[in-house]
Amino acid sequence: MLKIFVARGSCSLASHIALEEAGADYSAVKLDLAKGAQRADDYLAVNPKGRVPALATDRGVVTETPAILTFIAQSFPDAGLAPLDDPFAFAELQSFMNYLASTVHVAHAHKYRGSRWADDPAAIEAMKAKVPQTMADCFELIETTMFKGPWVMGDRYTIADPYLFTLAGWLEGDGVDPSRFPKVADHRRRMAERDAVKRVMSTFSS
Amino acid sequence: MLKIFVARGSCSLASHIALEEAGADYSAVKLDLAKGAQRADDYLAVNPKGRVPALATDRGVVTETPAILTFIAQSFPDAGLAPLDDPFAFAELQSFMNYLASTVHVAHAHKYRGSRWADDPAAIEAMKAKVPQTMADCFELIETTMFKGPWVMGDRYTIADPYLFTLAGWLEGDGVDPSRFPKVADHRRRMAERDAVKRVMSTFSS
Repeated sequence: MLKIFVARGSCSLASHIALEEAGADYSAVKLDLAKGAQRADDYLAVNPKGRVPALATDRGVVTETPAILTFIAQSFPDAGLAPLDDPFAFAELQSFMNYLASTVHVAHAHKYRGSRWADDPAAIEAMKAKVPQTMADCFELIETTMFKGPWVMGDRYTIADPYLFTLAGWLEGDGVDPSRFPKVADHRRRMAERDAVKRVMSTFSS
Repeated sequence: MLKIFVARGSCSLASHIALEEAGADYSAVKLDLAKGAQRADDYLAVNPKGRVPALATDRGVVTETPAILTFIAQSFPDAGLAPLDDPFAFAELQSFMNYLASTVHVAHAHKYRGSRWADDPAAIEAMKAKVPQTMADCFELIETTMFKGPWVMGDRYTIADPYLFTLAGWLEGDGVDPSRFPKVADHRRRMAERDAVKRVMSTFSS
């Protein structure tokens, strides 16, 4: 059985939702990042990077959100979560997810994880100060050029949808008014109404 | 015909090599980043992100290195550049490439592109100062836990190989002694001897 390692407020939400959308038989293990559970020896044995998410399978562990999401889509093809038979459409999907991972998530991380990239406390504060601008710039690009609608990649719901939903959920905390991006905001509302999303969210409400 | 937009010293080298390995019919367009060619209107029409690489196809443009590399592997299956019929092996490959894109490339970017994440000149200097450590930490993880050998993913040469080769080529400039990572250094030597790599490198020597 698949086992997904997740943490509240992290990008692991995307993979968690995708498993639920796929109808997968899985269990979820919650880590408390505030207590440093991601750096405990037992978790480092699962994922030496000390990050969530990680997906344990019967062949080994998969890390990195775009890789996990793609693995879920390929493992449950009947769920139709990715255009598996169209290399160009698949590349567009990968491109969108890689932008979220390499640019948007990275912009957000400068608010909470600045110590990854500088030691000087003043520099870490300077990074935090720019997050509202960098996150807004990212979502401006998504809103105006990348989001196809009604779903991220167009008519078809894909693994990019829970991923965008997850990162869009960080906007308020990052000092960005979500109403600046109406397509993204509408997508977030529609995502929140999906049964799979409600089921996952309910597991974090206790 | 495929057209790849590249720039000297950038991660576009990985996609450029992959096209050559695949035996693709393609042309390469070189941008001079020092002159800001990536932000010129004609290039922003190709890639609104203002970055390289971008791969123009007859169906549209693909951006983000892992997406481009995967598109090349899927478009030229006879070249055997990815385990296309094994979702778990494919996920491991995606995971490796996503680590390069989201963590290693990002660590490196703090040396040259700190202004993306802070405005204060002192903060940008503080970011530069930490790059030797962050890049070394990344390559320590690659050397000890991620690199399978003799190629990145094991016995089979894949799109992850030109990608690692490209980022490993940044180590000296980032203040890291490459000899600290013998597997990666040996891989880099073997990569440099490949005909496809020599052909691409020769186009930048003039």
